[in-house]
Amino acid sequence: MTLFGGVEAGGTKFVCIIASKPDDIRAETRFPTTTPAETLGRVIDFFQRNSRRYPISALGISCFGPVDLDTSSPTYGYITTTPKPGWAQTDILHRLSDALKTPAILDTDVNGAALGEYRWGAGQGADPCLYLTIGTGIGGGGIVNGKPIHGLVHPEMGHMRLPHDWQADPFPGWCPYHGDCFEGLAAGPALEKRWGRRGETLPKDHPAWELEARYIALAVSNLVVAFSPRKIILGGGVMANQQLFTRVREEVVRLLNGYVQSPAILEHVDEYIVPPGLGARSGVLGAIALAEQLVLRE
Amino acid sequence: MTLFGGVEAGGTKFVCIIASKPDDIRAETRFPTTTPAETLGRVIDFFQRNSRRYPISALGISCFGPVDLDTSSPTYGYITTTPKPGWAQTDILHRLSDALKTPAILDTDVNGAALGEYRWGAGQGADPCLYLTIGTGIGGGGIVNGKPIHGLVHPEMGHMRLPHDWQADPFPGWCPYHGDCFEGLAAGPALEKRWGRRGETLPKDHPAWELEARYIALAVSNLVVAFSPRKIILGGGVMANQQLFTRVREEVVRLLNGYVQSPAILEHVDEYIVPPGLGARSGVLGAIALAEQLVLRE
Repeated sequence: MTLFGGVEAGGTKFVCIIASKPDDIRAETRFPTTTPAETLGRVIDFFQRNSRRYPISALGISCFGPVDLDTSSPTYGYITTTPKPGWAQTDILHRLSDALKTPAILDTDVNGAALGEYRWGAGQGADPCLYLTIGTGIGGGGIVNGKPIHGLVHPEMGHMRLPHDWQADPFPGWCPYHGDCFEGLAAGPALEKRWGRRGETLPKDHPAWELEARYIALAVSNLVVAFSPRKIILGGGVMANQQLFTRVREEVVRLLNGYVQSPAILEHVDEYIVPPGLGARSGVLGAIALAEQLVLRE
Repeated sequence: MTLFGGVEAGGTKFVCIIASKPDDIRAETRFPTTTPAETLGRVIDFFQRNSRRYPISALGISCFGPVDLDTSSPTYGYITTTPKPGWAQTDILHRLSDALKTPAILDTDVNGAALGEYRWGAGQGADPCLYLTIGTGIGGGGIVNGKPIHGLVHPEMGHMRLPHDWQADPFPGWCPYHGDCFEGLAAGPALEKRWGRRGETLPKDHPAWELEARYIALAVSNLVVAFSPRKIILGGGVMANQQLFTRVREEVVRLLNGYVQSPAILEHVDEYIVPPGLGARSGVLGAIALAEQLVLRE
């Protein structure tokens, strides 16, 4: 069994595993994100300690962003303009690759999660496969024609502009760049700022959820017409509220209004817009899948 | 030189060429779209007449939609639910492929145009490359990871929902499915219905154009955050109004507000959002590029 290293580099915690696939995880650790030196030191220490017993062929990193994924760029492999103290302009890819003397590949946390779900989770065989995380922020990634979506930079699906009915919802949005973009209207902080209390404390019949489902459905329906995806996976803290799935699905069907003539939407929307099949491990298993793609490509 | 056949199957006219690349077009014809029997008969006649002198290795078809591109579907290769009289449920792919005894491949007109531009036009080397046509309707397609975007069906980018300021623009939109989606607000008929006269008769300083640029820019900026494309090509009758490009570019930069940190947007937006490099031939040359991909894949 070829083993790979996977790192899910999050803004609050890091997860590292050594595995060949989801049911073959040989070693695992997790620790809080502190300074780059300390945090990456712990990553390196984990893989070095396990290197004799579990040698890895490549390392995949699913990372909070923004990251530079342009292989022709001088800052390829860097976390770039993050507001997270100490982390801006951190060359995470080469620091780990050099220290561990292994080929390594970096992608966004959400492209990683999309790839993990596409490889082993809810998105198996579904191309395009999109993954949205709706929590403190909103991010989206996806697999199209077998590989993650990159371009100028990487998708930033949380910053789509959506219809905003100011009479029904006078909250102006909180995105420092765009005000009432998707993230500004629908991420966790929008719930808290709009209703004066954290989302997880709002009762299930609170009007907050209808509005929340509306914005998520507007974004999802826009992604449906943009990508014609075969699967849309919704993760993140806000989506832990399971009843949101039912509301979002109903509203997506209503918004598309029969235009997209596919049984996936017209008959089986409950299998089309789904939670992650890999649970909380989409990201770190996506890192394993990234490493696998790197080895297969070479 | 390997020669290919290309068909641009449009709702009002068909164009057929035999070529290896843009500067090597060996034969060409165009005729109005009438009934399927007559129109496809003329396509078959054109290629048969030229088959001895210019034998083709494969046929590519860029077609008005919706079309079924799912190779596992029983109606793969069909034009499906078009309102165009007589054309619904037409198996264009197999009728041409069987009659001409040649391998054939079908895609949407806009995926075809995107591929043509990616192969030889304004989108060379730009992956993802998106192509939007803004005319009587609005359609969009694209190349991601080297190939056209398909999934459940194909992209229908004209049906994105956008912010609609009803005070500034009380026009309700004309899309029979969605009312004020992108196409409902910004395609040619929206201009005509909103202002009471056809777009091409509106003076350049008419407020119609600022509003039009606003909607196009909202759609383009949503596509920027969804795909992180390296090039966005805008074609179609409405975009024949060249001054729209300047307005759209300015508004896209304003909408993104520095969030997407890329010189392509921050410094070179005039080379980022561009007209088709192949002019009116993006679609039919895209059909040639489709045929080329089909042969290379086999």
